[in-house]
Amino acid sequence: MKNVPFKGIIAYPITPFDNEEQVDIPLFKKLVERLVASGAHGIATLGSAGVLPYLTDTEKEAITEATIEQVANRVPTLVGVSNLTTERTVYHARFAEKAGASALMIIPMSYWKLTDDEIVKHYDTVASKVSIPIMAYNNPATGGLDMSPALLKRLLEIPNITMIKESTGDVQRMHYLRRELGEEAAFYNGSNPLALAAFAAGARGWCTAAPNLIPGLNLALYEAIQKNDLHAAQNIFLKQVDLLKFIVARGLPRAIKAGLNILGENGGYLRSPLQPLALREIEELEGILGEIERLN
Amino acid sequence: MKNVPFKGIIAYPITPFDNEEQVDIPLFKKLVERLVASGAHGIATLGSAGVLPYLTDTEKEAITEATIEQVANRVPTLVGVSNLTTERTVYHARFAEKAGASALMIIPMSYWKLTDDEIVKHYDTVASKVSIPIMAYNNPATGGLDMSPALLKRLLEIPNITMIKESTGDVQRMHYLRRELGEEAAFYNGSNPLALAAFAAGARGWCTAAPNLIPGLNLALYEAIQKNDLHAAQNIFLKQVDLLKFIVARGLPRAIKAGLNILGENGGYLRSPLQPLALREIEELEGILGEIERLN
Amino acid sequence: MKNVPFKGIIAYPITPFDNEEQVDIPLFKKLVERLVASGAHGIATLGSAGVLPYLTDTEKEAITEATIEQVANRVPTLVGVSNLTTERTVYHARFAEKAGASALMIIPMSYWKLTDDEIVKHYDTVASKVSIPIMAYNNPATGGLDMSPALLKRLLEIPNITMIKESTGDVQRMHYLRRELGEEAAFYNGSNPLALAAFAAGARGWCTAAPNLIPGLNLALYEAIQKNDLHAAQNIFLKQVDLLKFIVARGLPRAIKAGLNILGENGGYLRSPLQPLALREIEELEGILGEIERLN
Amino acid sequence: MKNVPFKGIIAYPITPFDNEEQVDIPLFKKLVERLVASGAHGIATLGSAGVLPYLTDTEKEAITEATIEQVANRVPTLVGVSNLTTERTVYHARFAEKAGASALMIIPMSYWKLTDDEIVKHYDTVASKVSIPIMAYNNPATGGLDMSPALLKRLLEIPNITMIKESTGDVQRMHYLRRELGEEAAFYNGSNPLALAAFAAGARGWCTAAPNLIPGLNLALYEAIQKNDLHAAQNIFLKQVDLLKFIVARGLPRAIKAGLNILGENGGYLRSPLQPLALREIEELEGILGEIERLN
Repeated sequence: MKNVPFKGIIAYPITPFDNEEQVDIPLFKKLVERLVASGAHGIATLGSAGVLPYLTDTEKEAITEATIEQVANRVPTLVGVSNLTTERTVYHARFAEKAGASALMIIPMSYWKLTDDEIVKHYDTVASKVSIPIMAYNNPATGGLDMSPALLKRLLEIPNITMIKESTGDVQRMHYLRRELGEEAAFYNGSNPLALAAFAAGARGWCTAAPNLIPGLNLALYEAIQKNDLHAAQNIFLKQVDLLKFIVARGLPRAIKAGLNILGENGGYLRSPLQPLALREIEELEGILGEIERLN
Repeated sequence: MKNVPFKGIIAYPITPFDNEEQVDIPLFKKLVERLVASGAHGIATLGSAGVLPYLTDTEKEAITEATIEQVANRVPTLVGVSNLTTERTVYHARFAEKAGASALMIIPMSYWKLTDDEIVKHYDTVASKVSIPIMAYNNPATGGLDMSPALLKRLLEIPNITMIKESTGDVQRMHYLRRELGEEAAFYNGSNPLALAAFAAGARGWCTAAPNLIPGLNLALYEAIQKNDLHAAQNIFLKQVDLLKFIVARGLPRAIKAGLNILGENGGYLRSPLQPLALREIEELEGILGEIERLN
Repeated sequence: MKNVPFKGIIAYPITPFDNEEQVDIPLFKKLVERLVASGAHGIATLGSAGVLPYLTDTEKEAITEATIEQVANRVPTLVGVSNLTTERTVYHARFAEKAGASALMIIPMSYWKLTDDEIVKHYDTVASKVSIPIMAYNNPATGGLDMSPALLKRLLEIPNITMIKESTGDVQRMHYLRRELGEEAAFYNGSNPLALAAFAAGARGWCTAAPNLIPGLNLALYEAIQKNDLHAAQNIFLKQVDLLKFIVARGLPRAIKAGLNILGENGGYLRSPLQPLALREIEELEGILGEIERLN
Repeated sequence: MKNVPFKGIIAYPITPFDNEEQVDIPLFKKLVERLVASGAHGIATLGSAGVLPYLTDTEKEAITEATIEQVANRVPTLVGVSNLTTERTVYHARFAEKAGASALMIIPMSYWKLTDDEIVKHYDTVASKVSIPIMAYNNPATGGLDMSPALLKRLLEIPNITMIKESTGDVQRMHYLRRELGEEAAFYNGSNPLALAAFAAGARGWCTAAPNLIPGLNLALYEAIQKNDLHAAQNIFLKQVDLLKFIVARGLPRAIKAGLNILGENGGYLRSPLQPLALREIEELEGILGEIERLN
């Protein structure tokens, strides 16, 4: 069977900066530790929440090493190595493999829209240079490219591309993947407000930054699904849906940082051009987190 | 409590025509009878599947009367009375009420995009002229207007508007409706390929023309949901999803007519400009129906 | 050569109603007369501005006859005969031809999205039943269907379909039509804010309701284009662009009625669900018309 | 008056690579020389055609220096310094200024959608660190962010942001800019297929990679506009519109490289993941260039 190290709640820490906008590795490790301690089933770094494209190569390497060191094999690690050029993607993929990552996440970042053949060649080149499994990630909202379900299926023919992360928010694509790939399908949901629908469609896991703020509710949703208890899942999901929509609408790095502050945690600084949420947005988030508190 | 006569599978017959493109009432009654006999929990006529906008006033009245006569109170009836002008909508609403319909379905048909205030006034005027409950229907793909969840909520403040039918295919809107309206929320799914996600989100019923072809699978999905058995629901849904996508992609009147023919039933003729499916589309549908047969 | 009766400014009167929402034929004739007297090169009725889809068959016939009677051959007349069914489109096409219309305008109105083959058959059937020329009209915003340039070209192969009206607002389609059809191309612009770009692209005429309010500026734009004076055209267009955007954004029937009132003319009433502009919209329109007055 | 060094045809060389996918500076200089020699009114490097986001910092600096050296003040130079982070944008802006660029081009590259306030702060920070003029560039198709006309107007209040490049392909935005900014408006068109419409709307210049292949036609269009000869402009534009559409549809770096090869010039190699055009695309381009040759 294919090498698929993830299921359940795969938690995404943000990448925090210090007050001079430099990556704050000690704080990053604390954020990773919180997620592992909260019970997350996997840790994923250098994705959207981790502002991968805003980091230098050196910073990416430091984050990769800090992740693996801090997680210390308690749960599997997923490291983002996406880059505009194939050469740089290979470079970071090899680095992460050597550093001990369980798997790699790759989104085909675009400036010029890539053709399907260019995307396949890009993945194929990178995959041939590493042995650990790869999660192909589709997110047109950030990456600028929309990979069709048919293209995703084509990518899965490359030996070590064993997982798909879908973030389009289109539940029909999940039904397609489930139909095409069978019960063993390893597709993951990356669209937070779609978490219930995606699990209902058979998603094996949920890639999410929400556990930085509400790990209990995220895990409870997965447990209800595991118990085949749809009514419970629905109730648990309804408690968190407003938060899920908020963090997506405001941008994960901004929203998670603000939420950590509200919870009394240090969320660090953002790197420009990203700026903190406005006061009324922070108040809206306080309201949402307060309501969640009240309901539990 | 509000007057909400529907739950479960609300089945939509097509409006069949004879070979001179005139409405074929005897055949229509046969199609209605098949749906009632198959176990559908409600019958809805003069909607999209019933090609409402392609009918004359006289034809609409004949269909309304034939529906109510044939169903004979075995299940509740939902009659579409949508019209571009408010005056004509009132006219048909009153006709359907007098004829004995259980409830009315109204989509705000647009040529000129209506403002929110115009839409509210339109519904309010119609609702004030009848006493039976009304289902407000949102379907931008056919009606040309997209009513926001906030607008739908506003419509529900009108006394006898008690039900919402959502056909945008956006599952997040259903979460919103469920959150806003509570457990008693009477929202219905009108997007066939979203049936599983909508039930998972708490939809009270599914408005669908699929029971013309696969009533058993449609009813079984609802039963699995009623039993809180998500795994069963998922398996049952996966068996029918290809058919659901096909009938939407090809247009319900064309696809249901073709499917009836494949099943050995008379689906009648279409009214121009609508034309029968092309041969290769019919063959695709045969393949899908054959596969469903094989799996059961 | 093909029968192409129109060029220049083709003016669209609105269809006015009395205070009981019945069509007001005497007022309609006055509005037509104003347009002819202002120098418009053609008169087009029963289109979007004339709220065709909100009228009964009888009302459409009365408007058709009133148009032809009032224009009295001083300029050519273009009568809209679009209908959801082919049969009704044929009926109105024959009526308009018999009544003396110079040409017919037909948009393929959709509830169910029509296939290209259905659209071609629809036009072909109607065209075969009349001898006067037909303008095929593409306007996805109101009609719900977008005909590709390739489909429009296919329609032009039908003998008496001799003109295209493009209202998508996509200037590249006009370049395509001009390229494909040559200098004699009879394509018309129906997107008001695109008037300058469309003439620059070679449009033969401009189908517009703006002459109800600012005929002088509309005609002056065409004259500058005829004189090959781009600088003048640009200056004249800039004086009117705010009004053109306003009437499109607010809906032609609502905006033209309000504008007539501001100019001291009777614009009649609207038919529900359409409602008059809100006060602040009327004030915005007063500002725009006042600024135009000031600049002239 | 504001410092606006550009008008007319601003030509974009591609960034060529050698067969090991390293930047080929000698070939780049030859491509720049061809453009200057052809009569282009300005040279712009490190934009979309120049695959800016695929280059390392060192490569960007080498291209910047090579551009300025080769152009040698014969025409003004515009250097792209866009970067995801504000800090890196400042760095490259200062480098380009010191190297002797006439002006800077900046697109707000996004991974996370930036808010309007973030965009303004980003531009303001960069602008405050240099003294040469800046062209703010809007291109949602590549940059992932769409700046509204109102936001662009706000950017123009920053002292040395003196120019706007619009590549949305929406001619109405150009009318807005012309209206708001007056005759001295320095807005430039970056949408090739919109070149005629943009000049008709008052664009001061056209930012384009087309002069790599058809400089004569590009310059002739501008000359016809300067002479206020719309008929001539229309004819000249129609000769080149197919090529303009092709190079945009296929991606400028791929299409210009292929076109150079067809013309017997060395276009170098592309950097992966970008791959050369497929054979049938090259044949299509040969057909288009052959037809242009035939018409002249």
